[in-house]
Amino acid sequence: MSSSDIFLSETIGTAVLILLGGGVCAAVTFKRSKAHAAGWVAIAFGWGFAVLTGAYIAAKSGAHLNPAVTLALAIKGGTEWSQVPVYFAGQLLGAMIGAVLVWLAYYGQFKAHMSDPEVLAAHNGQEGMVDKATAPKAGPVLGIFSTGPEIRNAVQNLVTEIIATIVLVLAILNLGLSDNGKGVGPIGSLLVAFVVVGIGLSLGGPTGYAINPVRDLGPRIVHALLPLPNKGGSDWGYAWIPVVGPLIGGAIAGGIYQVAFA
Amino acid sequence: MSSSDIFLSETIGTAVLILLGGGVCAAVTFKRSKAHAAGWVAIAFGWGFAVLTGAYIAAKSGAHLNPAVTLALAIKGGTEWSQVPVYFAGQLLGAMIGAVLVWLAYYGQFKAHMSDPEVLAAHNGQEGMVDKATAPKAGPVLGIFSTGPEIRNAVQNLVTEIIATIVLVLAILNLGLSDNGKGVGPIGSLLVAFVVVGIGLSLGGPTGYAINPVRDLGPRIVHALLPLPNKGGSDWGYAWIPVVGPLIGGAIAGGIYQVAFA
Amino acid sequence: MSSSDIFLSETIGTAVLILLGGGVCAAVTFKRSKAHAAGWVAIAFGWGFAVLTGAYIAAKSGAHLNPAVTLALAIKGGTEWSQVPVYFAGQLLGAMIGAVLVWLAYYGQFKAHMSDPEVLAAHNGQEGMVDKATAPKAGPVLGIFSTGPEIRNAVQNLVTEIIATIVLVLAILNLGLSDNGKGVGPIGSLLVAFVVVGIGLSLGGPTGYAINPVRDLGPRIVHALLPLPNKGGSDWGYAWIPVVGPLIGGAIAGGIYQVAFA
Amino acid sequence: MSSSDIFLSETIGTAVLILLGGGVCAAVTFKRSKAHAAGWVAIAFGWGFAVLTGAYIAAKSGAHLNPAVTLALAIKGGTEWSQVPVYFAGQLLGAMIGAVLVWLAYYGQFKAHMSDPEVLAAHNGQEGMVDKATAPKAGPVLGIFSTGPEIRNAVQNLVTEIIATIVLVLAILNLGLSDNGKGVGPIGSLLVAFVVVGIGLSLGGPTGYAINPVRDLGPRIVHALLPLPNKGGSDWGYAWIPVVGPLIGGAIAGGIYQVAFA
Repeated sequence: MSSSDIFLSETIGTAVLILLGGGVCAAVTFKRSKAHAAGWVAIAFGWGFAVLTGAYIAAKSGAHLNPAVTLALAIKGGTEWSQVPVYFAGQLLGAMIGAVLVWLAYYGQFKAHMSDPEVLAAHNGQEGMVDKATAPKAGPVLGIFSTGPEIRNAVQNLVTEIIATIVLVLAILNLGLSDNGKGVGPIGSLLVAFVVVGIGLSLGGPTGYAINPVRDLGPRIVHALLPLPNKGGSDWGYAWIPVVGPLIGGAIAGGIYQVAFA
Repeated sequence: MSSSDIFLSETIGTAVLILLGGGVCAAVTFKRSKAHAAGWVAIAFGWGFAVLTGAYIAAKSGAHLNPAVTLALAIKGGTEWSQVPVYFAGQLLGAMIGAVLVWLAYYGQFKAHMSDPEVLAAHNGQEGMVDKATAPKAGPVLGIFSTGPEIRNAVQNLVTEIIATIVLVLAILNLGLSDNGKGVGPIGSLLVAFVVVGIGLSLGGPTGYAINPVRDLGPRIVHALLPLPNKGGSDWGYAWIPVVGPLIGGAIAGGIYQVAFA
Repeated sequence: MSSSDIFLSETIGTAVLILLGGGVCAAVTFKRSKAHAAGWVAIAFGWGFAVLTGAYIAAKSGAHLNPAVTLALAIKGGTEWSQVPVYFAGQLLGAMIGAVLVWLAYYGQFKAHMSDPEVLAAHNGQEGMVDKATAPKAGPVLGIFSTGPEIRNAVQNLVTEIIATIVLVLAILNLGLSDNGKGVGPIGSLLVAFVVVGIGLSLGGPTGYAINPVRDLGPRIVHALLPLPNKGGSDWGYAWIPVVGPLIGGAIAGGIYQVAFA
Repeated sequence: MSSSDIFLSETIGTAVLILLGGGVCAAVTFKRSKAHAAGWVAIAFGWGFAVLTGAYIAAKSGAHLNPAVTLALAIKGGTEWSQVPVYFAGQLLGAMIGAVLVWLAYYGQFKAHMSDPEVLAAHNGQEGMVDKATAPKAGPVLGIFSTGPEIRNAVQNLVTEIIATIVLVLAILNLGLSDNGKGVGPIGSLLVAFVVVGIGLSLGGPTGYAINPVRDLGPRIVHALLPLPNKGGSDWGYAWIPVVGPLIGGAIAGGIYQVAFA
């Protein structure tokens, strides 16, 4: 498959992934949303079906949608190393497009939320998510773009992301994500989706389960760039963890797969 | 396949879709329902499995059940343009039948709800869904029939419906909805159902995700015609958005598919 | 297949169906249950996966598990009329066994619940589910065994059960429930399960969706027979509706199938 | 397949099962978790998808992940008796590793929770789960490791575990869990996962549905060994029930299968 085909497919698939994934965060967060306060079950299924939809749409390129998956497949030998940057670039661009689409789909809600005195007061008052001394302040809608920890501790947060990503990538490798760029197929998409729901329900508590470098980084860049009033900081101090953790996790999963299941 | 076969299959399939879809709105809305206040997760899964059930039942005609899908398939070349009006007619009739069936299945609940002083008072008092100056007033059960925006703004609402429909149709086109009228098959039905759950969870917040012109228009016509006491207005001022938005979205998805995946 | 094979398979499959279906009602009802007050989403998925489990276990006999399904298949010509009584007998016995198993699995909870002064007071005080003038009083745990209407009206309740059963049986017939006694297969079991979840979410509000004569009658007989203190009446005045409604619905669905899809 | 391959596959698969299963208990229990108080629906789906993920990852060894399943397959003749200890050992070790991984993934949450005066006070005050006269006291995080009954009664709790395990193993045997060590396949993994969700929703109320000896014993051992401050007792008085019950249930299911379905 040509590099441009890979790039286009990964870009569109990752855009859909982040549109639906960021979308469910928006849907549950905003007061003037029909899904307001629908809870963590909604979040976990929302992200799972985001993966399902993106994975099916990007089947042409194997539907990696995640640099940690691309890395593990390259280590395993299923993806050529020369294509890895193409995958990464498409995934990052797609994640950014997806985040912009969330903003467009919830344009009125963003506007209402960020001029709501109650929201702004609550945001400036509470926290615990942000260590005010050492970290840039996370703005009131950053959670719709990127992940953040409940208890901020770099080592702990990194470990959580590594563990969660090992589970994801090990499952995908065992699904036999094809090396020929045909993806996991319809049943495989369904299985991966429910694995992602499971990871969200089970391991999402501490850090919000990025388990995908571009899922966090792409929308964070968009958060930093968008002209949102009162948006606050983009919490760049945390940004390396959901990038590095998933990459380490993906590499470890690749290793475990080679030892135990190859 | 004959036009009458298509018409019958689409009519029955769409009737089931709207019966179950409108049904879950009724189930969650009415006080004297066992599912009262079951929340947005119930709504999203209810609509998803409504699509699953309707799609499987109407497999004979390819189970479009949605003019936006029919339009995208015609653009793609999978459905003959001469059959398009047959699909549309069956879908609209089916949607109307489905809405009547919801009314019959919840007959006692409609009656109790619409003579409940508390409901009527709350409805006349609150709002925010309806801009009283410019729009016809939406009655207390209109939400069981048709969609309505949380924040009323034609451009924003249209954009949301377009984005959500692009996701739906792109997924269906990539599922390989067959051109020979055999539908997406059992696994495909399952995948589409979960894609619809995902769209509901993620993109349903602002407008209630019509993503299907007849899903909104058919029940709205029925709402206008049914002899329901205290039913209030049918909000015709909004009615064009969930018709036009999905058609634009379907056409755009057809274009994206041709460029990126065909 | 021999009649005794059919009988055994349907008995075990229906017992599992009712064990898990009644079980989720118990799980949500009882205070001293980890699933207490888990809500209608839990109920709907619980019944759906009850069907999934029972259907897969009873695949040998085609996994009807429901006289309305057996009737529709006999009308369609897939099941011999001479076998119909064998199916019915196995289904009724299985439903009764399942209800006894629910009681055994929740033995301590039944005992605690039915001697809880608060529960008994609330039960004797409220109601609305039972028209005290005309109907036998429904006891505080009858809902774990059998269905009951939110608004008691024979015609309305019958119509609701007929409509819901038409959807169920039409979906099953379109799944191609095999005529050779091999059931719907793994994917088919999954589809039927989610159809049942959908019917529960969407059409369960008014009557609690029996959609299966033995699902209601078998456990009601067990409720009448079990030596439960303070169990109250078994509401026999309502008992014919969830028997007759589903049988009418199954027959209508069989007719629709012949006209539109055969 | 070699014993070491079986051992490794079962160890990793069971570790994933317990990581995700224990993880969802942690996610819902801890205050400083994004899934705090997400409820029983989250728990049931979390455990179901834990099984899905573990089952798919351990497909190489047939993905028993559960001594009750191994026992039933040995009785049925699908697994050699000489391999049974290898399966058991891998499963127990995996369950212990999984419990340690939960602790690592939620390290900060454990620490915060177990030094929270409110939590400790509530734990020492309420109860009802633990009969203080006869049983060792269960500590405030034991529920993240092992199961415990709502109403403590050895016979009742044993019966509940037996009934629930019969359903699980009967379903697995009917899925045709292969005798050649290839597991149940993708669709089979999905079906088993939803069966487990169903058992959780329907039969988890009284005892928390161990339905797997190592699921309870492995993490309980880890609870006893981990240096957690204020961890309280490991409730060893109850520990035999979730071991013996599932083994009896598995054996009974094997017998039912031979009589009715073999």
